[in-house]
Amino acid sequence: MNIRTAFCVSDHTGVTVEAVAKSVLSQFPAFEFSLIVLPFIDSPAKAQGVARQIAETPDALVFSTLTDPALRSALRESGARLLDVFEHLAPALESELGQSATPSGGRTHGMANNYESRMEAVNFSLALDDGLQPQRLDQADLILVGVSRVGKTPTALYLALQYGLRAANYPLTPDDLDHPALPAVLLSHLPRLRGLTLSAERLAAIRQVRYPDSRYATLEQCRAELAAAERLFAHHGLPVIDTTRMSVEEIAARLRNPL
Amino acid sequence: MNIRTAFCVSDHTGVTVEAVAKSVLSQFPAFEFSLIVLPFIDSPAKAQGVARQIAETPDALVFSTLTDPALRSALRESGARLLDVFEHLAPALESELGQSATPSGGRTHGMANNYESRMEAVNFSLALDDGLQPQRLDQADLILVGVSRVGKTPTALYLALQYGLRAANYPLTPDDLDHPALPAVLLSHLPRLRGLTLSAERLAAIRQVRYPDSRYATLEQCRAELAAAERLFAHHGLPVIDTTRMSVEEIAARLRNPL
Repeated sequence: MNIRTAFCVSDHTGVTVEAVAKSVLSQFPAFEFSLIVLPFIDSPAKAQGVARQIAETPDALVFSTLTDPALRSALRESGARLLDVFEHLAPALESELGQSATPSGGRTHGMANNYESRMEAVNFSLALDDGLQPQRLDQADLILVGVSRVGKTPTALYLALQYGLRAANYPLTPDDLDHPALPAVLLSHLPRLRGLTLSAERLAAIRQVRYPDSRYATLEQCRAELAAAERLFAHHGLPVIDTTRMSVEEIAARLRNPL
Repeated sequence: MNIRTAFCVSDHTGVTVEAVAKSVLSQFPAFEFSLIVLPFIDSPAKAQGVARQIAETPDALVFSTLTDPALRSALRESGARLLDVFEHLAPALESELGQSATPSGGRTHGMANNYESRMEAVNFSLALDDGLQPQRLDQADLILVGVSRVGKTPTALYLALQYGLRAANYPLTPDDLDHPALPAVLLSHLPRLRGLTLSAERLAAIRQVRYPDSRYATLEQCRAELAAAERLFAHHGLPVIDTTRMSVEEIAARLRNPL
């Protein structure tokens, strides 16, 4: 296996450049890449320091999201090949918009900017985790419904942190699953309900970690609960996501858009 | 103000292309951009549908992270200028690595892939939120310490979701702040403690939303608590982050790296 070191250099958090690097490097499966993320490289002195570190690394690849061309030049002193995300995009936009780019230190890298509303959404999602405070469900943007350990909490938190959505989640207990309809407290919120499901094998594995050798973690119990939950989803015509092969980012991106 | 519509088209979640677009567009402050994110565009038919939508939008800009060149071609049928993040990066890597890229549908866009360990980290961070289960602090990668409403919980959850770090958080109560040293339960974990602080004005504003007109939310009370907390941080030589002007992404990126 060919192993190459890939530096990810950013003048801000490094989240964007790391995501771009991972994505494009995954298109070269014959190689194994060791990633080194260097965030907050926002001065010529820091860029020169990084260039020296890169120069000492054999065959290094260098990804960057540096908005200031002077910092890119400093990195280039390393002699390594520089793959800058903005290098082609900024000039293309300049010609399209008829205006010069203003290096901005990447202030808006990453995610939605509205810190307050995202933190407020996180607090909301925590306050309405696992069926808590059902009287506030009318304030939710989305309400995730599903059996225990199907991934409701991480998904709700990700929706809040990433997209600022007020995402509540409500667990379907074995008691709930015995009924032909969803719990009464959910019925006035049907348009905002989203069902989560999973393969029984995967759910059993997840529960097994939590409560080894319990009835709760048996394949049989998981199958029965998931089948009952899916019947309830179908009964009310809820949009449903099967999360078996999905990352939390994928689940959240699908939930954010119409299913 | 010039207003332009910018489409962000991805064959996966769209998180990466949206981040890149926001970052590069922020370098053109004379324009206002309206972003439309279109994730999971992973077939020629879907790309053709998007191309038609774009063609109907005057002066559209189109950002994309499409790993399959055929999908990029389909988008180009819209006639709009296509700004693809991989278009220059993939060929540059091909020449550097001496191998052709394999379009992969962006499987690893976004974040760390290890779903299990990130979910496990989220569960850990929730279980050790706000000083819960101090007997498990020895399992934490990081322990965030600070006064009420300084941002410990969202930061810990972000560290878990984004980086898979087991981030606990421990609140400093007015009682704790009366002592010359940190609570005894924290003292065996000093190397993993990180202090969070904030301007008193900002903290008062945040607390005011939660408990309007309470003593807890007065500027005076916030000043006193923050000063006492900072004394404790200094007493133990803890690394400290002032989060006043930072997004949760910035705070997390700084915490992840040596302070």
